[in-house]
Order: sequence, then structure tokens, then C-alpha cells
Amino acid sequence: MEHRDPQCCLGTSPLTPDEAACYAGLFRVLADPARLELLSHIAAEGCRPMGVGELASLVGLSQPTVSHHLKKLAEAGLVDRVAQGRSTIHVVVPEAFARLRRVLDVGL
Amino acid sequence: MEHRDPQCCLGTSPLTPDEAACYAGLFRVLADPARLELLSHIAAEGCRPMGVGELASLVGLSQPTVSHHLKKLAEAGLVDRVAQGRSTIHVVVPEAFARLRRVLDVGL
Repeated sequence: MEHRDPQCCLGTSPLTPDEAACYAGLFRVLADPARLELLSHIAAEGCRPMGVGELASLVGLSQPTVSHHLKKLAEAGLVDRVAQGRSTIHVVVPEAFARLRRVLDVGL
Repeated sequence: MEHRDPQCCLGTSPLTPDEAACYAGLFRVLADPARLELLSHIAAEGCRPMGVGELASLVGLSQPTVSHHLKKLAEAGLVDRVAQGRSTIHVVVPEAFARLRRVLDVGL
């Protein structure tokens, strides 16, 4: 999913319909408690590699469920999947979150 | 909806299940293009009072649809409704957006 860096945020000028649709899609991906928990585990661990199995045990979900959520987060550009040896680790994409924080700047 | 100010954000320590459910609910309210457009119009106008009719014409939706979205935003604590004479105007709640921006701070 490509996002142009918004010149505007909620507080400076109205969003165009395209921008609104794009950000609504990103917020929809975040509108899930399990995904937020996963993100917080990945982000709080900083650069420490964590595989699906470890994440699954941390949030108390099955590995297939965690893989599904991680796929959605990766498709939205919120996490990157990095091959490491025979496993895949996940890291957050700081720029994507910076962009969302900027959109939520109501300028007040 | 009550939200305790998070001592943590995504980047400092894992969210509890309750925190994750709370913020997922807020992101669900934001996961709608029309609501984001409405918020951006309300926020970009700063303190200028805008009624439902003016907002409806700005986003090209019917007044009942706009009223429905504004009710959801108000229930989530993202906008306040303020009686002004015979009409109701809407203002964003800066603290609610500051809290969401903080949650989206991945600390990287």
C-alpha cells in the first residue's frame, strides 16, 4: 500500500476523500486488540528478533492466528518481515507510525 | 467511554488486554473515511462553530448520515457537542487525539 506523506493533518486542512480512505484503511488494521497487543510486543522489544512462536505465546493466541494478524500488519506497511536464517522476524516500521501520529495532529 | 492515560505506549511496554481493547475501539471509530473527513473539517476550522447542515454539504453526505457519524465520534470522546442557541456545534477533543498519538509512539 502506498501512502503519500500528508502535507496536511486533521488540524491544518480537510483531508481529501482519497486521503481519508487511505487512513481509514490503516486505522481499520489497528482496530483489533490482538494486533495492537502484537504491535506493542514487537515495538517494546526494540530490535530483538521475535518469531511467530514467541509472539503467539506472549499474547495467548495460536500461531496461525498470529501469522494472519502479522500478515495484515505487514500488508498495511506497519511491520516489516525480515528473513533471519530459517525463520522470519518482525519489526515495526517507524515511518508508518510517525505518519499516523501526524494525521492525528488536530493542531489544538 | 473512560480511558486511563496510558503510562505506556506501543514502544515502551506491551499493552494490557484491556488497553488493547480500549484503543482498538477508538481506532475502529476512526476506520471510516467519512468520519475522518468530518474530523478534518471540524479540526481545520478550529473554533468556528459548524452545524450538521454545513458539515453535510462539505462532505457530500445527508444530514442524518452526518449526525450518525458525529454521534459515534462523540460517544468515543473524540468530539464534543456544544449547544449553541438552537443548534449544536461540534469541536474536537484535543486530549483524546494526544492520547492516540502517544499510543502510536513506537519509540524508534
